[in-house]
Amino acid sequence: MNRRSIVAGMLFAGVSLAPFGSHVIADEQPLFGYSAESSRTERQWEEKLRAIPSPENLRSYMQHLSARPHNVGSPYDKENAEWILAKFKEFGLEAHIEQFDVLYPTPKERVIELVDGGPKFVATLQEPPVPQDLTSNQQNEQLPTYHAYSIDGDVTAPLVYVNYGVPEDYEQLERMGVSVKGAIVIARYFHSWRGIKPKVAAEHGAIGCIIYSDPHEDGYVQGDTFPNGAWRPKDGVQRGSVADMPIYPGDPLTPGVGATKNAKRLDIKDAATITKIPVLPISYGDAQPLLAAMAGRVAPEGWRGGLGVTYHIGPGPAKVHLKVISNWPIKPVYDVIAKIPGSAFPDEWVIRGNHHDAWVNGAEDPTSGMVAVLEEARAFGELLKSGWKPKRTIILCAWDGEEPGLLGSTEFAEEHYDDLRAHAVAYVNSDSNGRGYLGVEGSHTLEKFSNDVAHDISDPETKLSVWKRDRLREIAGAKSADQRKEIRERADLRIPALGSGSDYTAFLQHDGVASLNIGFGGEDGGGIYHSIYDDFYWYTHFSDTDFVYGRALAQTGGTAVMRLADAELLPFEFGDFADTVQTYVKELKALSQKTQDDIRERNREIEEGVFKATDDPRHPLVAPAADTVPPHLNFAPLENATEELARSAGEYRKALEQANANGGAQLASASLADVNHLLIESERKLTTSAGLPNRPWFKHQLYAPGFYTGYAVKTVPAVREAIEQKQWRQADEAIVVVGGVLRDEAALISSAAAKLAAAK
Amino acid sequence: MNRRSIVAGMLFAGVSLAPFGSHVIADEQPLFGYSAESSRTERQWEEKLRAIPSPENLRSYMQHLSARPHNVGSPYDKENAEWILAKFKEFGLEAHIEQFDVLYPTPKERVIELVDGGPKFVATLQEPPVPQDLTSNQQNEQLPTYHAYSIDGDVTAPLVYVNYGVPEDYEQLERMGVSVKGAIVIARYFHSWRGIKPKVAAEHGAIGCIIYSDPHEDGYVQGDTFPNGAWRPKDGVQRGSVADMPIYPGDPLTPGVGATKNAKRLDIKDAATITKIPVLPISYGDAQPLLAAMAGRVAPEGWRGGLGVTYHIGPGPAKVHLKVISNWPIKPVYDVIAKIPGSAFPDEWVIRGNHHDAWVNGAEDPTSGMVAVLEEARAFGELLKSGWKPKRTIILCAWDGEEPGLLGSTEFAEEHYDDLRAHAVAYVNSDSNGRGYLGVEGSHTLEKFSNDVAHDISDPETKLSVWKRDRLREIAGAKSADQRKEIRERADLRIPALGSGSDYTAFLQHDGVASLNIGFGGEDGGGIYHSIYDDFYWYTHFSDTDFVYGRALAQTGGTAVMRLADAELLPFEFGDFADTVQTYVKELKALSQKTQDDIRERNREIEEGVFKATDDPRHPLVAPAADTVPPHLNFAPLENATEELARSAGEYRKALEQANANGGAQLASASLADVNHLLIESERKLTTSAGLPNRPWFKHQLYAPGFYTGYAVKTVPAVREAIEQKQWRQADEAIVVVGGVLRDEAALISSAAAKLAAAK
Repeated sequence: MNRRSIVAGMLFAGVSLAPFGSHVIADEQPLFGYSAESSRTERQWEEKLRAIPSPENLRSYMQHLSARPHNVGSPYDKENAEWILAKFKEFGLEAHIEQFDVLYPTPKERVIELVDGGPKFVATLQEPPVPQDLTSNQQNEQLPTYHAYSIDGDVTAPLVYVNYGVPEDYEQLERMGVSVKGAIVIARYFHSWRGIKPKVAAEHGAIGCIIYSDPHEDGYVQGDTFPNGAWRPKDGVQRGSVADMPIYPGDPLTPGVGATKNAKRLDIKDAATITKIPVLPISYGDAQPLLAAMAGRVAPEGWRGGLGVTYHIGPGPAKVHLKVISNWPIKPVYDVIAKIPGSAFPDEWVIRGNHHDAWVNGAEDPTSGMVAVLEEARAFGELLKSGWKPKRTIILCAWDGEEPGLLGSTEFAEEHYDDLRAHAVAYVNSDSNGRGYLGVEGSHTLEKFSNDVAHDISDPETKLSVWKRDRLREIAGAKSADQRKEIRERADLRIPALGSGSDYTAFLQHDGVASLNIGFGGEDGGGIYHSIYDDFYWYTHFSDTDFVYGRALAQTGGTAVMRLADAELLPFEFGDFADTVQTYVKELKALSQKTQDDIRERNREIEEGVFKATDDPRHPLVAPAADTVPPHLNFAPLENATEELARSAGEYRKALEQANANGGAQLASASLADVNHLLIESERKLTTSAGLPNRPWFKHQLYAPGFYTGYAVKTVPAVREAIEQKQWRQADEAIVVVGGVLRDEAALISSAAAKLAAAK
Repeated sequence: MNRRSIVAGMLFAGVSLAPFGSHVIADEQPLFGYSAESSRTERQWEEKLRAIPSPENLRSYMQHLSARPHNVGSPYDKENAEWILAKFKEFGLEAHIEQFDVLYPTPKERVIELVDGGPKFVATLQEPPVPQDLTSNQQNEQLPTYHAYSIDGDVTAPLVYVNYGVPEDYEQLERMGVSVKGAIVIARYFHSWRGIKPKVAAEHGAIGCIIYSDPHEDGYVQGDTFPNGAWRPKDGVQRGSVADMPIYPGDPLTPGVGATKNAKRLDIKDAATITKIPVLPISYGDAQPLLAAMAGRVAPEGWRGGLGVTYHIGPGPAKVHLKVISNWPIKPVYDVIAKIPGSAFPDEWVIRGNHHDAWVNGAEDPTSGMVAVLEEARAFGELLKSGWKPKRTIILCAWDGEEPGLLGSTEFAEEHYDDLRAHAVAYVNSDSNGRGYLGVEGSHTLEKFSNDVAHDISDPETKLSVWKRDRLREIAGAKSADQRKEIRERADLRIPALGSGSDYTAFLQHDGVASLNIGFGGEDGGGIYHSIYDDFYWYTHFSDTDFVYGRALAQTGGTAVMRLADAELLPFEFGDFADTVQTYVKELKALSQKTQDDIRERNREIEEGVFKATDDPRHPLVAPAADTVPPHLNFAPLENATEELARSAGEYRKALEQANANGGAQLASASLADVNHLLIESERKLTTSAGLPNRPWFKHQLYAPGFYTGYAVKTVPAVREAIEQKQWRQADEAIVVVGGVLRDEAALISSAAAKLAAAK
């Protein structure tokens, strides 16, 4: 799994109470959390670190790791885990493999055929090899095209085209008088995580689901297709997981606990995250005859793809037979864990990770990111030999089983829940990597920190700092003069919050560990995601072909981990955080207001006769029913808490300024253990043991993947989703809960400020 | 020609000092410009009038008029003119044919072939007949697919894809480092009038131009294709004129004078409106192999059509041979003119028109509108027999030669310039007609009048008044709460200004006659425009199949003409007009400000290094050069004039209220000849004899087709286009000129108000 295609527009998104001034003179200023002296030393080590990663090594690691298909349960998955283990050891690190045993379905029978309403057609469900791309020919080891955790089923029914298959699409279908009850829906990829599509289809009564890659988003409309270009060819298919991960990720049979050998397991039939209806992915080559055989109303403008046919909604006359039967074994996943013990604070852990499993050969996803983590490991090994001693423990992780459901990282984070809650400082994730701009998403207590790191990384193409390049890109892409003004005036670029889609999920949202997700991208498109064509040939022809952005990622990840591990005072900062929370509260108030306004306006239009008057009798629509105007919500608990946050952030800033005086003498000499402990706790405080309403696995009260988006984040999810789903009482209750969490956070920050001020 | 596809979104668009209150009680109020008594009589006649038009007749007229191809110079064009003449006479009207002799090129040789860079391909340039559509098989009489007034030429060069071929597209090409110098450009239809495309291509150095219909806008992406559906089939071609009509419409050899037998004519080589490079239209069937043979940079997102290929920009490798040779004869056009002499004010003329010539069979364009005008003529004939005597002279016109360049109407308006300036009250035009909503565009002194008429016409589908249906549609389509508020609160729906695209052009923009253009549409799409498939079969299967909207158009046109002809006081109103002019002035100030802001911002970004930092070395762009920030313009002359307009409109409103007192006793008894004369003059006052800068034929200072849009209006054109083209001195000068025109207009309105107040 990776979110690159989605993340591409979501890099640093960019007014702050940042405790330090302009970054122009960053070199003359001590690093955040460092005294002047220790800052000088740190900078020297960091420069050494950044000189180590080598494009040649990255290339050769990729060639090795992507040489054969290495999905969960495959021989090469295990071989890769052992090879990574050997590498960690070769670099001089302690390392071991931690195994979990997870439910992992693989295809046994797969059928999609057009049985009526058009020329008989049986979908190939096959990706043909490409002659010049040698690894595309490893059919014996390739996992067939399928959706992991689709329920078994064998159904025949008329097709209905549902666009992206997200809730708004079903609202539009309702207006058009089209029901999917008893039908098989065909949805195109994009605009939600794939697992949302069968979930929403089933909620509306569909009995089967087909997801295809439309050339409009993912094929020849975007550019030349593989092997002539980077984009998805006619028969390319996006595999992927469809488990209902917004309920919980990880092994469907062991929610909340590590899937160890003797863990208590659910019956498969009781696993809430397996789909309710069968689902299969297909190529646009296979989708074309199905969509061409449809009739009924012509699809609305925004629903039309690039297939060169008139898109119709149906139902039918195309009638389709869909059969999906899987093997449902328990399979091992191999997490490879390396450790560098901390010299001063061994019980404070800085964790870095990337997954190693792939759907097939996976050169881009995940190997392009994994090889950077390997070079970071090698660099740390080198520095250790040169006498570097990190104050804190560094843990490097190569996760297995990310693709089917964040299995390796989730089981690890569940199994080691208490330890991670006690010891984890931060988790820094990456996944796929490519050419372009540094993307950073994550915890806003680390927003300033991540900006600082980005100032010190050089962009391989422009030689600007990646921070400056990101900033200028944000200025170029700003949608308004106000937005541009903010970017120009704010010291730090804003970072988007994390939703889901990679291995940070369990750390951040279940364990409450402050997390960042980093990677480069935005200049390299392509259409090989989760296909047999995501391989060394493709990557070395169309992506970061000379691995200079791979090196930049290793430099970024290495710098971030090292700087967190060596700091006297952990570089958590609360001005940016309080500012961000305030924007969320403003958004929620605006959302509530808009919901009222929209319903009021629609009711008025119903009364005026707008819907009746504008109905075309030849294409009639179902008029919406009048709705109750929502009540005003009591936002005061959130607003008051936000002010407390801002005040406490100010206190911390003041304490920090004092600590930084005289070359940071206080930082160098005082015992900061208590302060650091509170800083580590600051993200934990944002979780509740009860978790989110209806999905208790998700404990973080600020960040979660949307219940109906899957990848994309919903910030302040309990409040936001209650408003979106028109659950006014729940929204009011959630405001009280989150308000309490934020007041507790403010108290923690005040306490950290007081302890810092008093530290001797 | 017609503008339906463009007009579809431009119906009544939505604060006014309207002199009368709510229209809810319209029945109890005298008609605008009528005393209570004469209003009662008028309403009775109007009701009789609206009962007369018959769908059966409309259908049979259409069947006759569209039975054979009837382009200019064809036998059936003349037969139709004579048939219409006979019909007018049969209805009891005086009528005659007025002939002009115009330059009218027809194709002699047409070649488009791919000679290099892809598989050899010769474009068919042919529209095949469809078996069930009998008139599609009249090949002997069909005009081949071509662009009238393309210069002759024979060129071979690499292709460059230029999207819609409008100026902004060339700006983007420049950023991408692509030149069209020496190339043949291929542009898709839409987003400008077609004649703009070869004009702009030639300005940038291209040597040939191909325009094709892309299925994205005009084919299977929109809906099922003919004969299965209404949309353009693979081989359907849009013929049309490419004369540079924003310079002057009508016969290219006789600008400004009627093309009578002995008129002084230019040499063809001196005719400014003939294209500078050869140009031909093609189908998407013929375009596909050309576009598939292109390489180079992938077209930007907004440039990609629906052809199922990756769109590339080139240049080449596709190399194309384009040859266009025409016959260039002088051909007759036959305007059919019927007259009903006015009983009280014979020297005040109310004029109604629609064209009768077509590119091929032309059932929709123009016959669907022409047949309504015929039923209006029949209805007037019936009422005359029942004793109705219109106070003013009514002139009904069936124009010839509209398609190649508004020939019949322009030559008429040029030939009768002095008479029309002296006598014409208003010109009411229609062209094609279809299902849906009433669209009205035109002079804002008639905005209130056109709203009044729309209140009295019943929509055949919903039985609402067409005004109410339009209003509710505008509410549904409003883009903001402010816009909705205005629609709900303003007494009158706004009408858009007229640009060009049909026969009102010469009346309004050359002669200064207040004009309206009316027609129904917006519920019937289709892709047969200017093809052999625009015929009776298509119209009766896919458009206003039962001709109820044809009847509604005859009712609307008939009511408008009758009400103008019978009024005591001409129903011109200046509150809406002054309000509209004020919005234009605000727009111009905002445009000027935005131009400054945009240049200032871009200069800053150049200085910050934005363009350099965001350039992708694999797809490099040419950074823009810094530009001088435009000076502030002196808008005071326009602002002061606008206030004078508003004050004079208030005076007129007050005089009107007084005249309406006591059942409009003053209207019934006083001599209003002087007031009416000033009202007639009110549109003339908006013209200048010098006309627009660089295009003196266009004399109206508020409305003109854009020099680079062709159809779409540019209001206050001398000022707006100077700003758009960064001609600051000219903009300041034009503000003074237009300010003067508007002050004169305000003086005229004040004078009319004084005369009305004093009328006895």
